[in-house]
Amino acid sequence: MTDRIAVLAHEKFPDRSKTANGVLRYADYEVAAVLDRDRPGERVADHLPDVPDAPIVESFADVPGDVDALIVGIAPIGGGFDESWRPDVRGAIEAGCDVISGLHYFLNDDEEFAELAAEHGVDLRDVRKPHDDLTVAQGRSDEVSADVVLTVGTDCSVGKMTATMEIVEAARDAGIDACAIPTGQTGIMIEGWGNPVDRVVSDFTAGAVEEMILEKGDEHDLLVVEGQGTIVHPAYSAVTCGILHGAMADKLVLCHAAGREAIHGYEDTALPPIEEYVDLYESLAAPVHETEVVAGALNTADIDDDDEAREAVEEFADEVDAPATDLIRFGADEVVEAIR
Amino acid sequence: MTDRIAVLAHEKFPDRSKTANGVLRYADYEVAAVLDRDRPGERVADHLPDVPDAPIVESFADVPGDVDALIVGIAPIGGGFDESWRPDVRGAIEAGCDVISGLHYFLNDDEEFAELAAEHGVDLRDVRKPHDDLTVAQGRSDEVSADVVLTVGTDCSVGKMTATMEIVEAARDAGIDACAIPTGQTGIMIEGWGNPVDRVVSDFTAGAVEEMILEKGDEHDLLVVEGQGTIVHPAYSAVTCGILHGAMADKLVLCHAAGREAIHGYEDTALPPIEEYVDLYESLAAPVHETEVVAGALNTADIDDDDEAREAVEEFADEVDAPATDLIRFGADEVVEAIR
Repeated sequence: MTDRIAVLAHEKFPDRSKTANGVLRYADYEVAAVLDRDRPGERVADHLPDVPDAPIVESFADVPGDVDALIVGIAPIGGGFDESWRPDVRGAIEAGCDVISGLHYFLNDDEEFAELAAEHGVDLRDVRKPHDDLTVAQGRSDEVSADVVLTVGTDCSVGKMTATMEIVEAARDAGIDACAIPTGQTGIMIEGWGNPVDRVVSDFTAGAVEEMILEKGDEHDLLVVEGQGTIVHPAYSAVTCGILHGAMADKLVLCHAAGREAIHGYEDTALPPIEEYVDLYESLAAPVHETEVVAGALNTADIDDDDEAREAVEEFADEVDAPATDLIRFGADEVVEAIR
Repeated sequence: MTDRIAVLAHEKFPDRSKTANGVLRYADYEVAAVLDRDRPGERVADHLPDVPDAPIVESFADVPGDVDALIVGIAPIGGGFDESWRPDVRGAIEAGCDVISGLHYFLNDDEEFAELAAEHGVDLRDVRKPHDDLTVAQGRSDEVSADVVLTVGTDCSVGKMTATMEIVEAARDAGIDACAIPTGQTGIMIEGWGNPVDRVVSDFTAGAVEEMILEKGDEHDLLVVEGQGTIVHPAYSAVTCGILHGAMADKLVLCHAAGREAIHGYEDTALPPIEEYVDLYESLAAPVHETEVVAGALNTADIDDDDEAREAVEEFADEVDAPATDLIRFGADEVVEAIR
């Protein structure tokens, strides 16, 4: 039976609630309500027309019917816990709900929540807490029978998680037994498992990816690994590089946001030309495992006009020197064809 | 006053005691004795002629005179604690000595040692335990007034730590106010401070380097950052990449071990040509901060004949397309000249 969930997204739905939106769009849950105290009475469909509709309510107390879990679907900068959410989390636990969070602040380390959860017999699932048995990579991801595709990016927040999920869905629609390998909190919440690669000990970055690939790689025909960051990121490139070498991907899909010119939050760092990204990802991966950028995924959400978006996609395809699309706007056919 | 120390290196001195040897060679300590139960009665000078001499003894009880600290100078694969060392560590604590360890196993988490240390008022210093305030890089390492040089490598264990220390010493001899930025346990033990970059949360890898550079960069004219791993390592490249972007180095020194053909412990992964390393490090660093490989440091310890070693150095210089030397065998003049 599908779990019924509520999604906390106070004051941030829908434009700054990446995790909530990902869960609404891709996870296999029945969504009872979204919590946003700025929009009570509105509906999800008013904002995101292409995901299953649900009411927006002011607090957990207003969620209609019983739910199995409350998902924290937003994160303040720094990943802390916003104290204004405490009554909702408390209410959920007292109603016998599990609480699922991808915050850096672990709910299990919060004394009140931990005690309350024990009392009510519910689980607090901190998906960003790595498990204790991670270790260094052995360089064995190429031994699995599945083809491995990795989404890589020109920056953070260009759509790698979305591309990963869209490619898996489209591949399944095309009859391919595909599986997502989630590496970040949203992907982990959607799939219900995975290693939060940005939170592991740095020496274990590649190992955390390899562990997942070895676990799933002989059960499916295609693994699509969710990439993180970008290889030229002033702060997060370590994670990107560890995933690149840990995944030993056969094929790469380069993700980019149309119009992005500098690294988000690091405006002094200009994005290099797309051709240079292709060269960098391929030449950096090659000594460990030969790979190729076989497709481009362009996020054109900021372009209103469809013709203009189509032009941007064509230009991007030229730069990548491979088929490209906006997976949400124009579908995933080109990409699925390219990774077959 | 210089601290007097003893160095634990049971059964591994001198060929498998990298940390002990680094401390003997570069740290500002007076070494009272090396502990190696396989070599009691021998002397350090019998094995390492170019470091200050000291007796080798069987156990802590045999160390002559009082010492301030016991340093654990070896590490089993995996970084665990070898129970056969327990009497020595216990003896040191009971004698009022601090114990300094770079093991993954934290002495402070060992109940017996923690209690004993509290009782005797000594410090257990686990240098591989990152401090709690690390965070993401801001891309600001280029704001310091010092020139920043980073040692990068073709593999693990090719001599990056040694090159770092040799360059700092030679630069000081040449009248340059130089400072090492230690990123690994041996460097941290030698310098007495530093962040163990391979143990930090992966998202904070670059940030852990940046923090050190911002701390020291306006106090000195030259910072030499100790690199880790290699950018094409199947397991550890994340750490290498984070250091590369976090350091925002002005100049790189490429370190290599003569004759190394495959990644140590990953024999399926052949080392790419030296020219390719130069391209990779420079092109990967450039979008964050332009840099250049300005010198090569070749470790020729495995070549007996001096002429042959000289030839290997010349060949390496051609491949790097920059001046090269074996810093231990032939001195550091070329490298110091190249980084001025």
